[in-house]
Amino acid sequence: MNVLIVHAHHEPQSFNAAMKDLAVAELRSQGHAVEVSDLYAMHWNPVASAADFGVRQQPDYLVYALEQRHNQQQQALAADIRDELDKLLRADLVIFNFPVYWFSMPAIMKGWLDRVLVSGVCYGGKRFYDQGGLAGKRAMLAISIGGRPHMLVEGGVHGELNDMLRPILRGTLAYTGMTVLPPFVAHHVPYITHEARVELLEQYRQRLRTLDSLPPLQFVRLDQFDAQLHPLPA
Amino acid sequence: MNVLIVHAHHEPQSFNAAMKDLAVAELRSQGHAVEVSDLYAMHWNPVASAADFGVRQQPDYLVYALEQRHNQQQQALAADIRDELDKLLRADLVIFNFPVYWFSMPAIMKGWLDRVLVSGVCYGGKRFYDQGGLAGKRAMLAISIGGRPHMLVEGGVHGELNDMLRPILRGTLAYTGMTVLPPFVAHHVPYITHEARVELLEQYRQRLRTLDSLPPLQFVRLDQFDAQLHPLPA
Repeated sequence: MNVLIVHAHHEPQSFNAAMKDLAVAELRSQGHAVEVSDLYAMHWNPVASAADFGVRQQPDYLVYALEQRHNQQQQALAADIRDELDKLLRADLVIFNFPVYWFSMPAIMKGWLDRVLVSGVCYGGKRFYDQGGLAGKRAMLAISIGGRPHMLVEGGVHGELNDMLRPILRGTLAYTGMTVLPPFVAHHVPYITHEARVELLEQYRQRLRTLDSLPPLQFVRLDQFDAQLHPLPA
Repeated sequence: MNVLIVHAHHEPQSFNAAMKDLAVAELRSQGHAVEVSDLYAMHWNPVASAADFGVRQQPDYLVYALEQRHNQQQQALAADIRDELDKLLRADLVIFNFPVYWFSMPAIMKGWLDRVLVSGVCYGGKRFYDQGGLAGKRAMLAISIGGRPHMLVEGGVHGELNDMLRPILRGTLAYTGMTVLPPFVAHHVPYITHEARVELLEQYRQRLRTLDSLPPLQFVRLDQFDAQLHPLPA
């Protein structure tokens, strides 16, 4: 399969970078084709703006999603967006590899979502959730976080981690139709020993060897709602 | 009181810009001092990187939060971060004004959180939730979103909007100690008439006139947890 790893960390020696390198090596050794978008190394521009569009349907008033659709049709999206969209469309599995900042992804990666998940291709109209434009692809987060496991469960100080990640897991990945695998979470990374980090990397390797046996997360389907998106009786 | 409005929209004629302008005028007419950080107009850099630090505690390995603390102590944070942090520390109320992208804020604003919510000032150690560094300040989201209200409630196609906003409301604003007011939400904005937009702006004006009577959202308190952040018996 084709794998795309979208990676965001400013320190090449970081644990997150080691996770990315391990995934590249492991997945290639399994026979997969792996591409990496190393956002810091690429100097990725995360800011959605008028500069993303070579032509304009509405020159006087910028509606970003409208111009995404128009520029995709006219093949006039900015080259950096087009390159990433091509990688995304080639991929069977997309891994988002990042340190959790404010219970979300670093801004440089949020801007990858904002600019690359182009309306008219990845979503739009009634193409969302199981009808989304990226249906058939799988996605997984591979993340590090400062907190300990007991802080990130129901009743813990921050509640269930997947609830914090909901706008990504459900609102973005499932929304665009992707099959969402459970996140791989490396806890407490800034505070643990080298040996503990090595052990976490080994756990990540095992995860990458067992992707096909992982039950994906479950989300809504559009056939549970009527044409106006009111819920139908169960 | 001092109000800071952090605004992120690339179109000066947008509904979001109108919300921002209305809030400036309304809050000033109430006698408050209002500052605006118009992130697109400022060409705000949202990418957390080594360039944010004038000095380094660890020159060979970038740990962002560590260098935030060190550079804050050494008064060596990048000038754009220092300016925004000063605005934030002056503010009694912070309004985050943005269009919802992927059930979150645009990357340019996420990068304001990443860079300006400096460790050692806004949070750090046991200074979070009710013990957070920004305790005593209030925060409110003022947002536009494409969906209709019935799509953003429990049982709706996307579930409760505040659950999607959890990493911001709880994981960021409440985490840093701020008192979080319910978001003001302008639904379905891209698809409604001019008259309906005017009506929404009037609702926003009323909201800004009744902030003191709004019950804030409720979150955990650290006295509900032991020293290792395990929950205490209720």
